[in-house]
Amino acid sequence: MEIEYKNIKVIGFDADDTLWVNETYFRDAELELAKLLSPYETANKIDQELFKKEVDNLPLYGYGIKGFVLSMVESALEISNNTISNATIYKILEIGKDMLSKPVDLLEGVEEVLHTLSKDFRLIVVTKGDLLDQERKLEKSGLLDYFHHIEILSDKKEANYSKLLNHLDIKPSEFLMIGNSLKSDIIPLVNIKAKAIHVPFHTTWIHEQVHENETQNKNYNTVENLLDIIPLLSRKKSGTTVKND
Amino acid sequence: MEIEYKNIKVIGFDADDTLWVNETYFRDAELELAKLLSPYETANKIDQELFKKEVDNLPLYGYGIKGFVLSMVESALEISNNTISNATIYKILEIGKDMLSKPVDLLEGVEEVLHTLSKDFRLIVVTKGDLLDQERKLEKSGLLDYFHHIEILSDKKEANYSKLLNHLDIKPSEFLMIGNSLKSDIIPLVNIKAKAIHVPFHTTWIHEQVHENETQNKNYNTVENLLDIIPLLSRKKSGTTVKND
Repeated sequence: MEIEYKNIKVIGFDADDTLWVNETYFRDAELELAKLLSPYETANKIDQELFKKEVDNLPLYGYGIKGFVLSMVESALEISNNTISNATIYKILEIGKDMLSKPVDLLEGVEEVLHTLSKDFRLIVVTKGDLLDQERKLEKSGLLDYFHHIEILSDKKEANYSKLLNHLDIKPSEFLMIGNSLKSDIIPLVNIKAKAIHVPFHTTWIHEQVHENETQNKNYNTVENLLDIIPLLSRKKSGTTVKND
Repeated sequence: MEIEYKNIKVIGFDADDTLWVNETYFRDAELELAKLLSPYETANKIDQELFKKEVDNLPLYGYGIKGFVLSMVESALEISNNTISNATIYKILEIGKDMLSKPVDLLEGVEEVLHTLSKDFRLIVVTKGDLLDQERKLEKSGLLDYFHHIEILSDKKEANYSKLLNHLDIKPSEFLMIGNSLKSDIIPLVNIKAKAIHVPFHTTWIHEQVHENETQNKNYNTVENLLDIIPLLSRKKSGTTVKND
């Protein structure tokens, strides 16, 4: 089955782990937390408890670093059975501030892809992170001028994307989403008849992982490198159709 | 000098303390923190330290409850000179979760104003709070259907509003902002030649307060009650001009 991209008007880019490194910093933070809490529990158990806490808190805190830090503090209190030192709690707050101050490490090909696509399409950033944090990264990245604006979604489910398309005043077939998360950037789009291209990142948060059967019979392309998107979307080619995998 | 509203196409409503009670919950949280830290400092000093911490952390945390909670935890560590109990830190996290679960208490006239204005204008919510928290409140409020969408700004300065107008594809003279904060909802709009109507709330966070000279010679209307906006914007009247104060 072939995928047509010729009606696309707007391309949405996921930001974290699609444009720049992000998940790696969360994994690093988890390692630091495990080190701080090593007198109380094994690293594996600490990871599990933190993940459980994050998922429990998601309805209240949503995504992003600040909620992650609050969940780390809460986990530290519980894992230590309320014996953690104030100094350690302070260090956890510092882990969060460090994450919010990280340099922006662009992924391969980002600049070239945005430069090329911005000539033919309206590009936007579509993220469920924290707006201030995403704006900070976009400014640091030097990519700001390629994007018309940033769309922050509280979650990346079908209803959120439908609302976005309504807001953008375009049909699903005119929207293409590019991102690293099957669960957040690809499957909901395909389900509402929009287009999506999957660009995997080497690390995926367990909350974003999907079972194989969720992607069966779904119609989207996967590329290994962001640069592989350019030939898929080239307007110069006659008949912009390609085979999906 | 009279203010013309006849070109308005889109009306932006601030959310917190314009549509519903918010600042009151922050004041309540500060009182609770002062009580928890009363063995260490006076309430007045605790308020001052927390405010200083919030302002210091604003560039990293931005606005909203999660950053506020992180600043409360950090202040508690410092004010107690690292002798605060884990139980107290847990209580501070709980204060934050309570704030994020508060019922939505609509201000007087909100429903009637939105019902009336939504017939003639595109209404949007423009806030610098946390998206998830604002969506939660909008859903709880039952006001969701009156709004085309929510715009989250990382800050409410002139540049943020200019970007918003660009994104909405309208001229400044076609945009009216309604809100309770002179600093965030009124002055930047007037400065970029958009319209603004000030609806004061009884409590204003000290960070949002402005000096009198910042509002001198600024051209905007102030109304005591949200309902007073309706006659200002009525399309039925011939010549929708009114005197400002």
